[in-house]
Amino acid sequence: MRIPKHIGVIPDGNRRWAKSNGLNKEQGYGYGLDPGLRLLREAMKFGIEEITYYGFTVDNCKRPKEQFEAFSAACVAAVKIIANENVSLLVIGDTSSACFPKELLQYTKCDRSNLKEGQIKVNFLVNYGWEWDLKNGVKSKEISRMNMIIRWGGMCRLSGFLPIQSVYADLYIIKNLWPDFKEDQFDDAIAWYQEQDVTLGG
Amino acid sequence: MRIPKHIGVIPDGNRRWAKSNGLNKEQGYGYGLDPGLRLLREAMKFGIEEITYYGFTVDNCKRPKEQFEAFSAACVAAVKIIANENVSLLVIGDTSSACFPKELLQYTKCDRSNLKEGQIKVNFLVNYGWEWDLKNGVKSKEISRMNMIIRWGGMCRLSGFLPIQSVYADLYIIKNLWPDFKEDQFDDAIAWYQEQDVTLGG
Repeated sequence: MRIPKHIGVIPDGNRRWAKSNGLNKEQGYGYGLDPGLRLLREAMKFGIEEITYYGFTVDNCKRPKEQFEAFSAACVAAVKIIANENVSLLVIGDTSSACFPKELLQYTKCDRSNLKEGQIKVNFLVNYGWEWDLKNGVKSKEISRMNMIIRWGGMCRLSGFLPIQSVYADLYIIKNLWPDFKEDQFDDAIAWYQEQDVTLGG
Repeated sequence: MRIPKHIGVIPDGNRRWAKSNGLNKEQGYGYGLDPGLRLLREAMKFGIEEITYYGFTVDNCKRPKEQFEAFSAACVAAVKIIANENVSLLVIGDTSSACFPKELLQYTKCDRSNLKEGQIKVNFLVNYGWEWDLKNGVKSKEISRMNMIIRWGGMCRLSGFLPIQSVYADLYIIKNLWPDFKEDQFDDAIAWYQEQDVTLGG
């Protein structure tokens, strides 16, 4: 079986999910925590070496205050949950801005020279910006190239997700909204990946 | 109607088309010329302001010699055909390498300060490389951000296509191979674009 080494995850659709479930938009983010953990465990079953979650961006910070507070809190909680797993965890984003949650500063330094048995590398983008990334000499250079990107919520776009690491990635779109994550969707993505040929532009 | 200002075109599948039509792989490229012109004319009907064709890349030059010669010749022919239309034409790529066709040097300077009535901007990437682009301080900075990218040949990936200009683009995948281009496919892409909401990360 051809296993992608590094998978990017765009967990989109939390607000639409909230609305369609009679909640306020900002109440959707909390329902993305459990999916994030379940996806990680599913990925570890397959022996995936690296996962990158698209948390929130500097652009997202322009959203209404109640939404910003909600997705920021959800990302802090997600990182803390993931930190308890057998992971080598790195949080990447613009730490110089007030939008960067201070609680996550401790995860922005990560030595990957000595990975422990069975550990998976997890990158979590928090207050990330593609312009910030490029302007600062590719801040995300510790992140390897992605083989596949899985996006929930139906949109077929990158939305500024790691432009360098995504150049050759296969993009797999799942119509379901992120809080409706099922392990089957991830398994289907891996099955689909089998059919893609890797040319790296050659 | 919501018309994308700038559309990127990834004309993939020439070699597969050749094989399935009993030809040698390199014989497929010539069958991409007529589609390129027809797409341009269809785009002009919709009032699209800018089109960027993904010609060939520095990575593509590693392919067997007969293929390189064939796609290089096809790109030269395509540019010359397009130059006869009502276009403001710019060829972009690494002109310092031997793989860049000398016949196209004349198209690498293009003054867009005085667009003529009804002119469409056309960018044609020839011996382009995303690493070259980024290393040289974004050589493609004259190219605006793309609203939509249409890719023929079924793959859902960017393959190094203008990483900066593609950050917020909606990607529309057509299973048909590029030589099987039909105007309807382009029209369907525009119809699909109507359903995508533009957030620019906000």
